[in-house]
Amino acid sequence: MLDNSVIDGVATSKRIRGVLAPVLTPFNPDLSPDPERFLRHCRWLLSQNCGLAPFGTTSEANSMSAEERISLLDAMIGAGIDPSRTMPGTGCCSIVETVELTAHAVKQGCAGVLMLPPFYYKNITEEGLYGYFNEVVQRVADARLKIYLYHIPPVAIVGITPRLVERLLRAYPDAIAGMKDSSGDWNNTKIFLDAFAEIARPGPRRFDVFVGSESFLLANMRNGGAGTISATANVNPAAIYELFTVASAVSAGVDLKPQQDRLNLVREVFSNTKFPSMIAALKQTISIYAKDPEWARVRPPLLALTVREAKLLAAELKAVGFAMNRMGDTDQELRK
Amino acid sequence: MLDNSVIDGVATSKRIRGVLAPVLTPFNPDLSPDPERFLRHCRWLLSQNCGLAPFGTTSEANSMSAEERISLLDAMIGAGIDPSRTMPGTGCCSIVETVELTAHAVKQGCAGVLMLPPFYYKNITEEGLYGYFNEVVQRVADARLKIYLYHIPPVAIVGITPRLVERLLRAYPDAIAGMKDSSGDWNNTKIFLDAFAEIARPGPRRFDVFVGSESFLLANMRNGGAGTISATANVNPAAIYELFTVASAVSAGVDLKPQQDRLNLVREVFSNTKFPSMIAALKQTISIYAKDPEWARVRPPLLALTVREAKLLAAELKAVGFAMNRMGDTDQELRK
Repeated sequence: MLDNSVIDGVATSKRIRGVLAPVLTPFNPDLSPDPERFLRHCRWLLSQNCGLAPFGTTSEANSMSAEERISLLDAMIGAGIDPSRTMPGTGCCSIVETVELTAHAVKQGCAGVLMLPPFYYKNITEEGLYGYFNEVVQRVADARLKIYLYHIPPVAIVGITPRLVERLLRAYPDAIAGMKDSSGDWNNTKIFLDAFAEIARPGPRRFDVFVGSESFLLANMRNGGAGTISATANVNPAAIYELFTVASAVSAGVDLKPQQDRLNLVREVFSNTKFPSMIAALKQTISIYAKDPEWARVRPPLLALTVREAKLLAAELKAVGFAMNRMGDTDQELRK
Repeated sequence: MLDNSVIDGVATSKRIRGVLAPVLTPFNPDLSPDPERFLRHCRWLLSQNCGLAPFGTTSEANSMSAEERISLLDAMIGAGIDPSRTMPGTGCCSIVETVELTAHAVKQGCAGVLMLPPFYYKNITEEGLYGYFNEVVQRVADARLKIYLYHIPPVAIVGITPRLVERLLRAYPDAIAGMKDSSGDWNNTKIFLDAFAEIARPGPRRFDVFVGSESFLLANMRNGGAGTISATANVNPAAIYELFTVASAVSAGVDLKPQQDRLNLVREVFSNTKFPSMIAALKQTISIYAKDPEWARVRPPLLALTVREAKLLAAELKAVGFAMNRMGDTDQELRK
């Protein structure tokens, strides 16, 4: 057995679960990805029991080319990052690029891929989305493929419906492994859990529901969910992982609301609408705690925090007692 | 002087204007682009006095990879299509790909590029969009660059505002050449015309406003606009071009409403919500008139018309007296 708490112990289907971070992508002054800082961040996250979901919304993946994503994934795996702890984002607007990125991730041994629906055309039918995902599975044509459907209607607009999941699961019970629900709507998550999670469908073939925010983590774990893939796991992984662990272990009678409330309090700092985006606020946070201004950079059309906003963020984090152990050897090295 | 009515005669700035089609992209059975049918369609459009805006929304460009778009553009230019009659779409979510496609189009001598804003992240600020376009112009770094900003809020959600245009024009009066307004809202087009069109800013540096639907063509030409880049120009170019010509030539006193109404009547057939999309209806139309079933194919997530829908379309086109001269030698050859 792997000494890997993010991997589930079910012998028939070792599935990634727990807490994953959509890994922030540091950029060089010329806006190219910075593999060195990226890898250090990946290693730090893993040391906090946090799995890696690179190339998510928080990673500014859609501000990167397919080629850049492939290079960065290869850099990760080449540097010895365990692929079974990774779930790269691979969903693009075009089948061609989605298939290219997905097939590459599968070949690299990644635990799964997080797949956006094609998000350019709007008012797309369920039939059209089924046609898209069907084509992707057929073209990747690899038994190791594990797709986690990515539902993030506030950003992608195009979403994943229960009926679409039902059809896809019927056609591809092995390849359709789960979903990330970033709707921000617990009622929506509950619908998917009730219809598809392990509780509803016992057996070796699971459909693992990850919530897109740790604010729903306790509810998700109490209702048969698999964990969370959350932006703030980039800066607050240990506390989020702790709630995941206790919520998985203790009975529903134990009151974990105080721990959930504490996570929410920290999260609210980053989602403060005074900041241009949560992504920029999270990068600024690493920049503050690692004392590394390079980390604050984002790619247009996103904006980095202004000096005034950065000071406000630092003050608010202090006010909620937030701490981040980014001052270790790794970051000392980085600043040499 | 070129014998090219789509090119404006102003000596200081030969700018493309008139009627352009966002060229439909025919796909092979394996869904790869079909350069042969594509080129024949391009040549037919040019023969109808219709300029070419390949890789637009109607072209399913966002369902294609950057590589596929470059190959197809190279196939066009390599086959002798005059680049000065072309305005390829080059706007992607990532700066990297937008710059790559734009620089390539400029090198190929295209009249301009039609550029979507980065459309993944929503609630993007004007400052963020300015940063994006600024970065693109700086990186392309070519005096020949002519950007037409593409405003299509129903699809891209992220839009182009007058203040953004004002800032960009101030910074790059030569590179920012105009826009395509596909808002479907004449009041919005009028705001841009009043603020930026030739009438408002006489001089050699123009800002050319194209409407995204020929239903606004007469109004656009009467208010200083440059023409239309319209999906339906793929099938009805001659009639649209005729209205462009007379509206440009005759005084505002002449009543051209009957001609405008006639165009609208035909357009309404394709925008019938009974069809899965206007794109699929237009492809089906070519398929019908060229007697070429291959043309009906779309890439997922779009859906082709069902047999029943195709029959309805054919009947409705007949009912409005629509005709399309796709039965010439070119298409005879194609069917060999």
